[in-house]
Amino acid sequence: MIQADEMNQIEKVANGSILTPKGYRAGGIHSGLRYRKKDFALVMSDTPASAAAVYTQSHFQAPPLKVTQESIAKQGKIQGVVVNSAVANACTGEEGLANAYRMREMIAQRFDIPNHFVAVASTGVIGQQLPMDKIEYGCEKIDLSEDGQEGFQQAILTTDTRQKSACYQVTIDGKTVSIGGASKGSGMIHPNMATMLGFITTDARIEPDVLQKALSRSIDKSFNQITVDGETSTNDMVLALANGEAGHSELHEEHPDWGAFQSTLQLVCEDLAKQIAKDGEGATKLIEVNVTGAKTNEQARIVAKKVVGSSLVKTAVYGLDANWGRIVGAIGHSEAEVNAEACDIYIEDQLVFSNGTPCSFSEEQATEDLDKEEVTIAIHLGEGDGSGTAWGCDLTYDYIKINASYRT
Amino acid sequence: MIQADEMNQIEKVANGSILTPKGYRAGGIHSGLRYRKKDFALVMSDTPASAAAVYTQSHFQAPPLKVTQESIAKQGKIQGVVVNSAVANACTGEEGLANAYRMREMIAQRFDIPNHFVAVASTGVIGQQLPMDKIEYGCEKIDLSEDGQEGFQQAILTTDTRQKSACYQVTIDGKTVSIGGASKGSGMIHPNMATMLGFITTDARIEPDVLQKALSRSIDKSFNQITVDGETSTNDMVLALANGEAGHSELHEEHPDWGAFQSTLQLVCEDLAKQIAKDGEGATKLIEVNVTGAKTNEQARIVAKKVVGSSLVKTAVYGLDANWGRIVGAIGHSEAEVNAEACDIYIEDQLVFSNGTPCSFSEEQATEDLDKEEVTIAIHLGEGDGSGTAWGCDLTYDYIKINASYRT
Repeated sequence: MIQADEMNQIEKVANGSILTPKGYRAGGIHSGLRYRKKDFALVMSDTPASAAAVYTQSHFQAPPLKVTQESIAKQGKIQGVVVNSAVANACTGEEGLANAYRMREMIAQRFDIPNHFVAVASTGVIGQQLPMDKIEYGCEKIDLSEDGQEGFQQAILTTDTRQKSACYQVTIDGKTVSIGGASKGSGMIHPNMATMLGFITTDARIEPDVLQKALSRSIDKSFNQITVDGETSTNDMVLALANGEAGHSELHEEHPDWGAFQSTLQLVCEDLAKQIAKDGEGATKLIEVNVTGAKTNEQARIVAKKVVGSSLVKTAVYGLDANWGRIVGAIGHSEAEVNAEACDIYIEDQLVFSNGTPCSFSEEQATEDLDKEEVTIAIHLGEGDGSGTAWGCDLTYDYIKINASYRT
Repeated sequence: MIQADEMNQIEKVANGSILTPKGYRAGGIHSGLRYRKKDFALVMSDTPASAAAVYTQSHFQAPPLKVTQESIAKQGKIQGVVVNSAVANACTGEEGLANAYRMREMIAQRFDIPNHFVAVASTGVIGQQLPMDKIEYGCEKIDLSEDGQEGFQQAILTTDTRQKSACYQVTIDGKTVSIGGASKGSGMIHPNMATMLGFITTDARIEPDVLQKALSRSIDKSFNQITVDGETSTNDMVLALANGEAGHSELHEEHPDWGAFQSTLQLVCEDLAKQIAKDGEGATKLIEVNVTGAKTNEQARIVAKKVVGSSLVKTAVYGLDANWGRIVGAIGHSEAEVNAEACDIYIEDQLVFSNGTPCSFSEEQATEDLDKEEVTIAIHLGEGDGSGTAWGCDLTYDYIKINASYRT
């Protein structure tokens, strides 16, 4: 007998991507913006899809984001998403805005769809104008295919060392719904949609405003909870398309499978966000910080992010040093309410700090625990029932190396 | 003819220190807390001095700070300040508090003054109990002299590479008033009295509550405007003593020379704070960020601190890379109001970004400008008349080296 919750069982799709959901094609090519690597990407839905997006909170929002917002504002629908790496088209004034419009228009013309069905994203160096001959070349030459996800995933990267994709499936009204995603990140990853690109596709049937609500909620607990170096970029954006091809009844907050859909979207966002954190510039490991016992969930998230973003905690993890004192320092420095006398800290399974003072623990075991690709720090604040998680990476010599010579 | 403002002329005293003001003696010795270096220090006023202090905002305030607050609360007077490095006596629970009281008591007994005339400060590793046999040894053996400033300055350091001292003089009622100071910093330097020790002595005559007001004001524009790595410690404190030995009429906010006194105190705090920033862990240079055109002075200080604290700006300066894009990124990410279209950025004398877009400038000149021990970035926000400054340092391989292996 199948139980309701089993019917909604969420499953991760091995090697799933933005092309696992029905009705999408994608591609990525080398247009000449970069020396050799792919730098120009496109993903298209066969039909106009409901669109939702979350943008950087930077005061200097780049032209592509303005153009994308305008596209979505018109009908809430997007069919094609064009992305270039190498040049961010940020701080480029009116010329940059005109170029972003032009990029949108070229894709619209080539695929014979209205301009406002195209979203535009750019990532790379700030302050340079897009070399439009190369962008034109990209718009003319880009090809779409049903197995073009790798090209897409490669072409959107900058200093990333790995492609980032994820896909989960869930049953809605007895139909399989897929939610897939691709992302790029690396340096400049921090709060409030700061500093990465994320593209999510699904064949779910859902109106744009409902999708927007689901996306915003998922992002608060995923992309907004990662940090690489506390920086924010001018170009960050997460964009979700839902083309309805799975053929179930329309999703909304009262739909019996709404919770399952929201959870699945959350999982995709979390998976992509963690891949970004793990691939932070120069990083050798993913650090996950789980906070419980906070006054509210929001306060828990604040503390988790403060700890995972602390340069001293990051360098200690890199040095395999179970330096709980730095964790205490970061908690103490956070804006959340903390009961210092009731605070417990675990590094992996070992309690290292309890009720405001250190515990005796095995340094040897701790060093072994820290010498893994994924390290978990758990903190109980003793203030209430709020919980939250944040992800980051260690701070290494390579971060300095990459960033002291980025332009040269 | 001497003008009023000339009478108040403020002068920096070459090689001045906490012992330049009249009526103070100090010393520093090796008590065994550290392997070889001096680790135990004391400064005493010949007479009980008006005291004021600002403490860390960390939720985990260390026992020495609690004891010092209690001392000052009693009569607003302090005569002796005892400091140890190596062990911070933080997160040490009731035993740690008892040890801090004991340290205070031993100094009080040795110099035959009331317990509450003694302030206590500790800096170093968190979570270890003070080895009280060594503290006792220190309390018994410490000697005071009129040229003991170097011993004091050395003994309070941790990962610092340089002693930090400053002294300025000003004329009040025709009498020379000296304000001297010593500080220690290095890593963990950030907002809200976060993460260093500062000791200020003066022979000015001033009541504790008035001194407190002057100190708090000065700190907002100095110690609170430096950042090394965005961290805060459990032990930070700036303490000021004023013993009145300069013999002028009592200072208060209506005193004709009040402004001169406040400015002098400000200069001492700024000088000490800059020395801390410049000696940040692994730093090769001091970075000064001046912000003008902000809506308020507070917003200007927020932006200045955000820029000087940005890991990407810090690594760019280390790499001699005039990467104004990262400065834009940091400004954009700050909570202050910014008019992106009116924003100007200078690296030293070159305008590199104007009205929201980059300018053409000499990269060669910029590299030369950045290849100095002190680098200035100036930002005009185009929002109002507010201005503010912050200081920090570059982020280097050595920061990682120092912090990935601090305990081992």
